[in-house]
Amino acid sequence: MKCSRCKKTAQVALPSHHAGFCPECFNEFFSRQVERAIRHFRMFTRNDRVLVALSGGKDSLALFRELHVQGYNVTGLHIDLAINGSSPHARQMVERFCEGLGAPLRVVSMAEEGLSITEVKHKVKRPICSVCGKVKRYYFNKVALDEGFTALCTGHNLDDEVGRLLANTLRWDVSYLSDQSPALPASGGFAPKYRPLYRLSEFETAAYCFFNGIEHSTAVCPYSAGASFPVRKELLNTLEEHSPGSKLSFYETFLKNAKALFEAAEKRDGDSLAPCTSCGYPTSAGVCNICRLKEQLRD
Amino acid sequence: MKCSRCKKTAQVALPSHHAGFCPECFNEFFSRQVERAIRHFRMFTRNDRVLVALSGGKDSLALFRELHVQGYNVTGLHIDLAINGSSPHARQMVERFCEGLGAPLRVVSMAEEGLSITEVKHKVKRPICSVCGKVKRYYFNKVALDEGFTALCTGHNLDDEVGRLLANTLRWDVSYLSDQSPALPASGGFAPKYRPLYRLSEFETAAYCFFNGIEHSTAVCPYSAGASFPVRKELLNTLEEHSPGSKLSFYETFLKNAKALFEAAEKRDGDSLAPCTSCGYPTSAGVCNICRLKEQLRD
Repeated sequence: MKCSRCKKTAQVALPSHHAGFCPECFNEFFSRQVERAIRHFRMFTRNDRVLVALSGGKDSLALFRELHVQGYNVTGLHIDLAINGSSPHARQMVERFCEGLGAPLRVVSMAEEGLSITEVKHKVKRPICSVCGKVKRYYFNKVALDEGFTALCTGHNLDDEVGRLLANTLRWDVSYLSDQSPALPASGGFAPKYRPLYRLSEFETAAYCFFNGIEHSTAVCPYSAGASFPVRKELLNTLEEHSPGSKLSFYETFLKNAKALFEAAEKRDGDSLAPCTSCGYPTSAGVCNICRLKEQLRD
Repeated sequence: MKCSRCKKTAQVALPSHHAGFCPECFNEFFSRQVERAIRHFRMFTRNDRVLVALSGGKDSLALFRELHVQGYNVTGLHIDLAINGSSPHARQMVERFCEGLGAPLRVVSMAEEGLSITEVKHKVKRPICSVCGKVKRYYFNKVALDEGFTALCTGHNLDDEVGRLLANTLRWDVSYLSDQSPALPASGGFAPKYRPLYRLSEFETAAYCFFNGIEHSTAVCPYSAGASFPVRKELLNTLEEHSPGSKLSFYETFLKNAKALFEAAEKRDGDSLAPCTSCGYPTSAGVCNICRLKEQLRD
């Protein structure tokens, strides 16, 4: 197979784009997909201070490198979750990566915040993945607002977005469907959130890391066993294999034809947020989840 | 495994209902699902004249028998499509079945109407399944209206409904999504249309036929090769296997949470129908598809 752009030997085939690329042209393709996402949703410009959440996995590191290379003013944010067995390695990966790139990094330690996820896992009865997600989103938002960043980015890729869309659609969860987008504008206590990799698949971000020598953490979270998404992932892969481009098309037609309908319905009966009476960040419940969790762990 | 109702030996397992049944209790279960559908959507009563479309396959025959047994005033309608190789057998099945049941049957012959599907297949360039579907729906509606039936039923089962819902959802086709329901009320030139089997899977209608000795046509349409739905069917079966009840839940939450949103959007920019200038049945295009098709075949 020859590269669709330069006719050298292709090293990666992308059936959903009817294309194959050599490493250089793949990088060009990757950059264009990111640019297209940023432009289409008017995410941010080179004048913005962009905070990029870095887990240490391939997606967030690929995104950070790409935005850095494109000349955006990016700072990394790593939440050290203090999970025994996986967090130290992830943190080391992120620190080494940012150092190599010469890019600034903020690290927030959950152990220091009194929210070690391993401790949460042992003391709190609720599903740990949901609690951990809440903790991360809280600190992403807090750091972005406290330190004056004008955009907050995460490395969610097309597979993440489409998997979530399918899950929300199978339940026809109007509230979640109204909220799903690669670009959520700032609103009452929330920094504006962006997902510039939404057009790129998991395979494509992995290829980007491989071609650009990005070392990333492949350690699986010790608490992720039994998460239900592998079935939906498998379904979507079967669909994509049978009809390349299905994933992106499912997601893009949702954004174009349906999202606004769910948004309008949600606005009619949406609940309202107010500052947490303890920390001041938005919540629908007086004292926010995170402050209550800290309280619980102190007891 | 024991029958969930009477504790005799079960002959059929229904994981999505956390149940297993002996043949008698399965019939009871089947009846209740049909009753529940009719009641929930106020489809029709025993005072209505109900026309049931009979292809000769398991679903339509199961539906017809069940409505007949429940004491509804039902008449069968078979469209003899004049497809070489499959139509004569299907017609014979339907005729024999109605005779055995002592129930009235109307047969409309497409050969006599100048619309033999085999001829259409050879003379018309468009995909045959789509044309054949249009022809059937036209005659279902025409016979129902011309002969004063107050309800028109088809044997679409849960798998049909959910397969269609998934296809429409993957494309986020707002117009089709707005129109998908087990109950479509009468409107400008259309008889009210109902799908009382929407709560029952393909497997369940097959079991009903088996337990009640219903002989049905299993001849595959010679033109159905290459139809794209098997992939989606496979996806839904994987999902159902992994999480029994997924199909019904996907369909029911759609009806409950989302359908009205698509309907409202469609009403805002829906196109309007008027009587066909040739036959008088509703169309959006001056002369309707069927009249144009007849014209084309006469040439």
